[in-house]
Amino acid sequence: MAVVRATRLAHFSAAHRLYRDDWSDERNAQVFGDCSNPNWHGHNYELEVTVEGSVDPATGFVMDLKLLKELMEQRVVADVDHKNLNTEVAWLEGVNPSTENVVVAVWERLVDQLPEGVRLARVLLRETPRNWVEYTGG
Amino acid sequence: MAVVRATRLAHFSAAHRLYRDDWSDERNAQVFGDCSNPNWHGHNYELEVTVEGSVDPATGFVMDLKLLKELMEQRVVADVDHKNLNTEVAWLEGVNPSTENVVVAVWERLVDQLPEGVRLARVLLRETPRNWVEYTGG
Amino acid sequence: MAVVRATRLAHFSAAHRLYRDDWSDERNAQVFGDCSNPNWHGHNYELEVTVEGSVDPATGFVMDLKLLKELMEQRVVADVDHKNLNTEVAWLEGVNPSTENVVVAVWERLVDQLPEGVRLARVLLRETPRNWVEYTGG
Amino acid sequence: MAVVRATRLAHFSAAHRLYRDDWSDERNAQVFGDCSNPNWHGHNYELEVTVEGSVDPATGFVMDLKLLKELMEQRVVADVDHKNLNTEVAWLEGVNPSTENVVVAVWERLVDQLPEGVRLARVLLRETPRNWVEYTGG
Amino acid sequence: MAVVRATRLAHFSAAHRLYRDDWSDERNAQVFGDCSNPNWHGHNYELEVTVEGSVDPATGFVMDLKLLKELMEQRVVADVDHKNLNTEVAWLEGVNPSTENVVVAVWERLVDQLPEGVRLARVLLRETPRNWVEYTGG
Amino acid sequence: MAVVRATRLAHFSAAHRLYRDDWSDERNAQVFGDCSNPNWHGHNYELEVTVEGSVDPATGFVMDLKLLKELMEQRVVADVDHKNLNTEVAWLEGVNPSTENVVVAVWERLVDQLPEGVRLARVLLRETPRNWVEYTGG
Repeated sequence: MAVVRATRLAHFSAAHRLYRDDWSDERNAQVFGDCSNPNWHGHNYELEVTVEGSVDPATGFVMDLKLLKELMEQRVVADVDHKNLNTEVAWLEGVNPSTENVVVAVWERLVDQLPEGVRLARVLLRETPRNWVEYTGG
Repeated sequence: MAVVRATRLAHFSAAHRLYRDDWSDERNAQVFGDCSNPNWHGHNYELEVTVEGSVDPATGFVMDLKLLKELMEQRVVADVDHKNLNTEVAWLEGVNPSTENVVVAVWERLVDQLPEGVRLARVLLRETPRNWVEYTGG
Repeated sequence: MAVVRATRLAHFSAAHRLYRDDWSDERNAQVFGDCSNPNWHGHNYELEVTVEGSVDPATGFVMDLKLLKELMEQRVVADVDHKNLNTEVAWLEGVNPSTENVVVAVWERLVDQLPEGVRLARVLLRETPRNWVEYTGG
Repeated sequence: MAVVRATRLAHFSAAHRLYRDDWSDERNAQVFGDCSNPNWHGHNYELEVTVEGSVDPATGFVMDLKLLKELMEQRVVADVDHKNLNTEVAWLEGVNPSTENVVVAVWERLVDQLPEGVRLARVLLRETPRNWVEYTGG
Repeated sequence: MAVVRATRLAHFSAAHRLYRDDWSDERNAQVFGDCSNPNWHGHNYELEVTVEGSVDPATGFVMDLKLLKELMEQRVVADVDHKNLNTEVAWLEGVNPSTENVVVAVWERLVDQLPEGVRLARVLLRETPRNWVEYTGG
Repeated sequence: MAVVRATRLAHFSAAHRLYRDDWSDERNAQVFGDCSNPNWHGHNYELEVTVEGSVDPATGFVMDLKLLKELMEQRVVADVDHKNLNTEVAWLEGVNPSTENVVVAVWERLVDQLPEGVRLARVLLRETPRNWVEYTGG
């Protein structure tokens, strides 16, 4: 039975700054530059979630992508879209919202939510069309 | 000698519906929703085929991508472009044309057609800009 | 007061064929070629709707794009997504669904639905990433 | 002598909220919804600036696009990239930063900066890949 | 009868340099900078050709886009793809191949080739994803 | 500590031809076709560089992508942008500039330049939107 990967894309727009509250403003500015602007900046994020599994002979699906779409909406997008990643997202509390830290947090939001026999294979998060990160759980 | 992956992109437009003829219309509708509309719907599919091999020191190629383009055209695109995936494609006969099932069938159409020393590494099929599947033969 | 154009993008996937029922199958095939395949084919259509008007000094909007999004959804996308443009869309009945004929029909669906003071400026419909049409009501 | 339009694309990432300080928080929330989140959100903006003029027979240019790139950088992008459009941009002071209001303000920043004989023809600002506005000075 | 615009996209890859042979190398370098590199550079050009006309009630077409595709191929792409725009294109002889000069030359190649009743409305040429020009014959 | 991949995209425009100087012109033409045009052609190349490493708990970064951007600029783009890949790039001397050969050469330019603990994971080079190659060092 063929093992296939299936991917679904979602979007959200959010504000953030790179910032550690245990560092001085000077050190934050020195390490993070413009990305630490205390008045915030923001992005249109693109989120790609890839799942892997055997193709179900009954449906021809790895999993129903409508269900994956709903999981992404309920577990991630609803919490972050038009929000401030530093101050408004419970599952990012205390996290400096670098793209790397956010992609790992998104993985944790999804990894135990998939149907039996389906594995979360990759989460990819684009901050801009020129910068993106991927996490495969390792 | 460096092992490199090379990818070629092709396009086709086709009609399909998700449908099993051993299920009732009700069950098809229940499982597949809008995707099972008996009057068909369709997509602009994007097909990415990736091959892998040592770079030939004579040519600097893994393989001539013009040849890969022709293989993709002759073995896949000519059969599916402006066609109905449920009723008109010999190598999809009896297959419920989910993206997963089609990507595996495309792999089978190409895997034994490559020049010696070149391996089919991945077939990726986009059904929409928001949904796609990949198969690596596993 | 500045006059600005605002555009919203939507997507739908549909089946169609180019076909006139007052022509023979031979003539349909001769004029429309592959696009007249009696077993249908389909596309991921992209629809751009552009409205024009003075920027409202109260809101800074030409019109609320959420409203435009809803109009596009209710008046167009809900009727055509995952449908057959030849047989299932009341407002395309008797129309050969060329991109040109569809874009004019979409215009008619939207032109009298906009808030006072807002003008429909352009409807653009992409059939593939290589073919698209625009209508401005002329 | 042919009159040609030439366009240059730039990018910036910024935070904003839709908000009028002469309205209550309730009214802001009611009119602007999620877009008025007091903790900000943000976007990757894409800015297209189009100039129009006769092709200079000496150079074959409407204008040197390197100069246009520098004008866009100095007069717009440097002021808004990684900034908060509500609180940090002198030329947006007192402006509710809807896409419409920003595109008009960008026009004003550029319209009198072009070389003699070159006319600003259009400014287009994309807030997301699904929403954009255009201003032609009217 | 509705007047609609239809657009077809084509691609070509070519080498060029900005250069006037009646100027010294120094002056070419000073005016055109990197773009005048005597050893050439090149681009993947994207060419959009837009035609305008009444929708033919027989076909639902402004014109058959297959014919437009063939005209673009025969009159333009076949002459420039994998060629040097300075030295190998008869209809660019003596022309400094700035994007502006090329777009006007492409217009001239196409303007009298269209079927009766169809007007060439716009030629757009992208040199890079960040720079493009448009000509409407004026 | 999570291991994440981060990618940065850059662009350059260059001329090239596929050509071996130890082969006759006839053999070059026969093997490489249009791509061997002695008058050159060119492309807008897109370069994606992916690095892999543990997320630094101090910064939330695999590595500062501004540093990766600068490395890509200094070690690669500055040498190839608006240049001739056959004749002007020291680190491509004697190399037939197929996309495969260039991607391997770019890998060598970057692999020993990364901060301690960060691994070069992949270099991807797009020659056109329809052809690209990847190298992972194997």
